[in-house]
Amino acid sequence: MLVVKKFGGTSVADKERIFNVAKRCMKSYQAGDDVVVVLSAMGKMTDVLIDQAKDINPNPSKRELDMLLTTGEQTSVALMAMALHSLGVPAISLNAFQVAMHTTSNCGNARIKRIDSERIRHELDQRKIVIITGFQGVNKYDDYTTLGRGGSDTTAVALAAALHADSCEIYTDVDGIYTADPRLVKKARKMKEITYDEMLDLATLGAGVLHNRSVEMAKKYNVPLVVRSSLTDAEGTVVKEDVKVERMLVSGVAADKNATRISVVGLEDRPGVAFRLFDALAKANINVDMILQSIGREGKKDISFTIPEDVADEALNVIEKNMERLKAEKVDCKRNVAKVSVVGAGMMSNPGVAAKMFECLYNSNININMISTSEIRVTVLIDEKEVEKAINAVHEAFGLED
Amino acid sequence: MLVVKKFGGTSVADKERIFNVAKRCMKSYQAGDDVVVVLSAMGKMTDVLIDQAKDINPNPSKRELDMLLTTGEQTSVALMAMALHSLGVPAISLNAFQVAMHTTSNCGNARIKRIDSERIRHELDQRKIVIITGFQGVNKYDDYTTLGRGGSDTTAVALAAALHADSCEIYTDVDGIYTADPRLVKKARKMKEITYDEMLDLATLGAGVLHNRSVEMAKKYNVPLVVRSSLTDAEGTVVKEDVKVERMLVSGVAADKNATRISVVGLEDRPGVAFRLFDALAKANINVDMILQSIGREGKKDISFTIPEDVADEALNVIEKNMERLKAEKVDCKRNVAKVSVVGAGMMSNPGVAAKMFECLYNSNININMISTSEIRVTVLIDEKEVEKAINAVHEAFGLED
Repeated sequence: MLVVKKFGGTSVADKERIFNVAKRCMKSYQAGDDVVVVLSAMGKMTDVLIDQAKDINPNPSKRELDMLLTTGEQTSVALMAMALHSLGVPAISLNAFQVAMHTTSNCGNARIKRIDSERIRHELDQRKIVIITGFQGVNKYDDYTTLGRGGSDTTAVALAAALHADSCEIYTDVDGIYTADPRLVKKARKMKEITYDEMLDLATLGAGVLHNRSVEMAKKYNVPLVVRSSLTDAEGTVVKEDVKVERMLVSGVAADKNATRISVVGLEDRPGVAFRLFDALAKANINVDMILQSIGREGKKDISFTIPEDVADEALNVIEKNMERLKAEKVDCKRNVAKVSVVGAGMMSNPGVAAKMFECLYNSNININMISTSEIRVTVLIDEKEVEKAINAVHEAFGLED
Repeated sequence: MLVVKKFGGTSVADKERIFNVAKRCMKSYQAGDDVVVVLSAMGKMTDVLIDQAKDINPNPSKRELDMLLTTGEQTSVALMAMALHSLGVPAISLNAFQVAMHTTSNCGNARIKRIDSERIRHELDQRKIVIITGFQGVNKYDDYTTLGRGGSDTTAVALAAALHADSCEIYTDVDGIYTADPRLVKKARKMKEITYDEMLDLATLGAGVLHNRSVEMAKKYNVPLVVRSSLTDAEGTVVKEDVKVERMLVSGVAADKNATRISVVGLEDRPGVAFRLFDALAKANINVDMILQSIGREGKKDISFTIPEDVADEALNVIEKNMERLKAEKVDCKRNVAKVSVVGAGMMSNPGVAAKMFECLYNSNININMISTSEIRVTVLIDEKEVEKAINAVHEAFGLED
């Protein structure tokens, strides 16, 4: 078995935890596996480095920031190799240059383009554990790049794909994917298996265990993902294309509290209006989330959308600068809203899911602000303070605790 | 002018010092120079990283230690680029992979083999200050290497040679090369110029300003070196092949307190004896320094040599293990001795220098343990506690204060 194991920053935060990870890898190695380990920077090191950079230059160039940040994972992998050596296990660390991990050129938010697997295979053939820096790559100019949020997950999946690994294990502080956030829903149940598409919708919608880029890539290259705890030996959740267990109507409920709704009211009802609005936002690098267009009064139309809370002010600024061009009447902003979603590959062939969700929210006296659906997902926007009540009600309505 | 400027760890130890260096480089840049900057790791960072490694593994592999240590210089260069950007100066940092800096394969003590200057020239052509990690290289396996003690000086000189730089400026905490250590000899005088050979003997003999590897390389490629202070604008000392000023008999006096003398007494007087002794030491990776062979009693011979204090016990071990093979009668060890040397290209054509030095030490009532000479140097071994008296006396005897 060739296994890629990814450990986040908290799993390598100090000497004791480094040895915990080393011992776990040793166990797999001694069982005969070829082991590739992907590590993030230790604990809060990335944040410390960013602070150090901003102290020198409040607005550091992305190229130089990545040059600085990549030292974080390089430190982790070197120390992990030393820990494995002291356990008597052959191991070698590799950074993005040594792999090589080729990415697109944009620093701070690069995408992996190609991985040379020759060096890794060579070291595995020597029966070494190969420890690789997560989060980082090298672009065509030979500059360091970083992959943005959740980058180390993406590194692990990309390596698993390039090496045709039998499994890609993502170690986190939870022991798998649950039907709902166990901190909010007491009856939440750990899932044994989940499909890529369900996981994608859960990741995008704020379940927060795996970054959606890594799940997208796992789906594209059919990499079997396992999400499990770095602290226990519990089995975890397998993410894959086809799930063997009988399809549940709904797999899980996710909530994302970090939302703001903006409504642009009284737009002209003619082609190009939506384009102009979202083009202006895209040019300001603001990603919108749910979009809803409705028919307004007197041949006008309204467009509402949700965005993360922290870019709300920026988005409002952009829209206000473009009011004349957009020919809008006014802009509304509703903060402290949250998205609650039910996700399930089973709902594709069952049209009653949305209705059941709305009924259950109505029974709990929760008002719905916006609705958005996809083939395997129904999302509603509600007041942030009603999130906990809502997901518990929905969780129960779909019988997820069984 | 293309100028290579090298700054040590203390010069970039904190934000304020980083900006000091940045401003100095900016000045040179604004005067129209092409500026290449070589940096060490910040302050004590290398020591901190070594401690971190040894906490994980008391005997870390050199390959992984270099993987860890190279993060130090990478941090310095990234922060320096950010500092220059915040001053409005275009700048880019490059590590050993990006340069690329090819070295021999032995980690921890590699030697530079070849430097690709294409990327550096390209960035200089864009009118950027190019900031390069000192001390580090990459070997033919694409592993990081480090260059050992004084490595960043060597990086700077090698870059100056590869780029045919007009000058290679080594910034230190002293403002140049003195006729003797100014902390020990009050009348010590800063030299305007000194030859490579003199500097080599001074570096080897413990003057401690430049590492001899960097001076050897500067001599080989005829790189004009300037040693100057990072804190003042004082002119510093130029190290070059031919010195214009009228040749002094002696240029400087150096002392090296870190010495131990070992004497192997009563060896057989036949071929191969010295070889066997020093071969055994070389195989234990112990570098000996001065060597003296004398005729002993009854057709036997004695061999004495000096070594750094910290390897004395190891050397004694090696010799004692080989006593039978060496057929020696006994081994003596004298600790707390020091080397005092006078150096000067001028003494090549003047045979009186050694005699004058011995006379002066005799007048000061200082006993000489060993004598060793080269074309441009006379070295004596004396008691460590008499060093200060000795170098002051010699300094005065040769009129170096004038």
